[in-house]
Amino acid sequence: VSAGPTAPRVAFQGARGAFSEEAAVQLLGRQVTLVPRPTFEALFAAVGEGVADCALAPAENTLAGAVQRTYDLLLESSLHIAAEVVIPVRHLLVGGPGSTFETVKTVESHPVALAQCERFFAAHPHLRRLAAEDTAGSVAEVVRSGDPTRAAIAGRLAAETYGGRILREALEDHRENYTRFLLLTPSPRVPEGADKLSLVFQLPHRPGALYHALEPFAARGLDLLKIESRPVRGEPWRYHFFLDLRAAPDDPRTPAALADLRQRTTSFRQLGHYPSARQRNHVDGSQ
Amino acid sequence: VSAGPTAPRVAFQGARGAFSEEAAVQLLGRQVTLVPRPTFEALFAAVGEGVADCALAPAENTLAGAVQRTYDLLLESSLHIAAEVVIPVRHLLVGGPGSTFETVKTVESHPVALAQCERFFAAHPHLRRLAAEDTAGSVAEVVRSGDPTRAAIAGRLAAETYGGRILREALEDHRENYTRFLLLTPSPRVPEGADKLSLVFQLPHRPGALYHALEPFAARGLDLLKIESRPVRGEPWRYHFFLDLRAAPDDPRTPAALADLRQRTTSFRQLGHYPSARQRNHVDGSQ
Repeated sequence: VSAGPTAPRVAFQGARGAFSEEAAVQLLGRQVTLVPRPTFEALFAAVGEGVADCALAPAENTLAGAVQRTYDLLLESSLHIAAEVVIPVRHLLVGGPGSTFETVKTVESHPVALAQCERFFAAHPHLRRLAAEDTAGSVAEVVRSGDPTRAAIAGRLAAETYGGRILREALEDHRENYTRFLLLTPSPRVPEGADKLSLVFQLPHRPGALYHALEPFAARGLDLLKIESRPVRGEPWRYHFFLDLRAAPDDPRTPAALADLRQRTTSFRQLGHYPSARQRNHVDGSQ
Repeated sequence: VSAGPTAPRVAFQGARGAFSEEAAVQLLGRQVTLVPRPTFEALFAAVGEGVADCALAPAENTLAGAVQRTYDLLLESSLHIAAEVVIPVRHLLVGGPGSTFETVKTVESHPVALAQCERFFAAHPHLRRLAAEDTAGSVAEVVRSGDPTRAAIAGRLAAETYGGRILREALEDHRENYTRFLLLTPSPRVPEGADKLSLVFQLPHRPGALYHALEPFAARGLDLLKIESRPVRGEPWRYHFFLDLRAAPDDPRTPAALADLRQRTTSFRQLGHYPSARQRNHVDGSQ
């Protein structure tokens, strides 16, 4: 997928101005056509329904951890991972045009965003927290209400998108707050520069099964980046294992390790081989 | 912890009648003193504050997966796992005394409970879903409102606790729906019959680190039951690994494996050695 003469239509979950939109623009460029979808289910369905060419799904936040719904929907879907992108998450307090920090009494946002600003709320105990559907949507609501007692926590793009007033910056407890997104496409084509590989498998239930599944990588010095387990529906206490590993282009160790692994699993699927995000330690959230 | 002459005070998250209360009663008996706490943070703080002798925290649901907040708070806490219990999750549609299935227009519950009843909502598209803080609390609200257009999704104990009327049963998409809870106590004492061990560690970042960490168990034929990874705050893309394994009482392989593992980790903590839940495949949710 490239944002060339025919700019792709990319679906993302949330309202315009969401962190997902920042991620889409960073990965595909400003000329991308943005297709906001209200839920994760609608996001994953967008390509099949023909309303988008690809979908951008959050996989992991460095504070909140894996986005479990994304892993489950990835498993149900036939989409492939074509790229990933990492964006810094910077939380701002955003009010309507008539608000100041002193007029604000309630602060609304997605529960994960609220939870990432504990220190701010501890320092301002008069502020009441209200859980909302998403960060950018909260800004839209607050601005539309015209109520100076309401503010939202969201990113800079959300503030700009809805004409909100930025009342405070850097609300997050931890600066090392990043979200990693996956670009999902219908094509299994491996893009140029692919150096990361994602797969999912199930294991026979016997002692040492996971150990033996990791052996093909360890024996060849291949680096695992992440392991995530998700329940198998209908089979209590059984798991799907998702693995990310470094897999340089044309490295012959990778197909050899995958062939070995496949023989040690009861189900196996390659989710994608794609260029890893260059991790940016300090990128301005405003693009 | 036993529900003997001095019945323990057990903290749980949620309102009276929550699935956590069912779990507490199943594990500790009806004479237990129940200490409801509004949030997970308050739950984990209850023992240190002296308002409870132990805390019961959900660790995992067989459909929704790991309860990430519990893992993170377990890491921050100094509590030990003393027992576990598994209860079946059966969802009911519960209205107020004046309601019938035909009067209901909106259905409120915890988002995870709503998501576990997709087929029910697909079959009744006129019902509007409303996310709420918790299952039992939704029943309390619905009954208190006296509004026959409102209903909640919750368990049988919640319906009984608040005098709700059961309008439909077995709403859940999958019958194999269980939640596993951990009993947390301040004492590191290993209870009689302990046959499961939980630990958490961090690994050096080099290829094969996880493989080598699992070797002490695989080499001795010790069975891993679960692996869960959670992000290390402030160190993007680094993880805490939580492991559950079978560890029969007085099995000399266990301390030997743990000693080996400890040398391969950069941090290591045993969370508890406790009797595993006898898994019940068909237990009536009504106790």
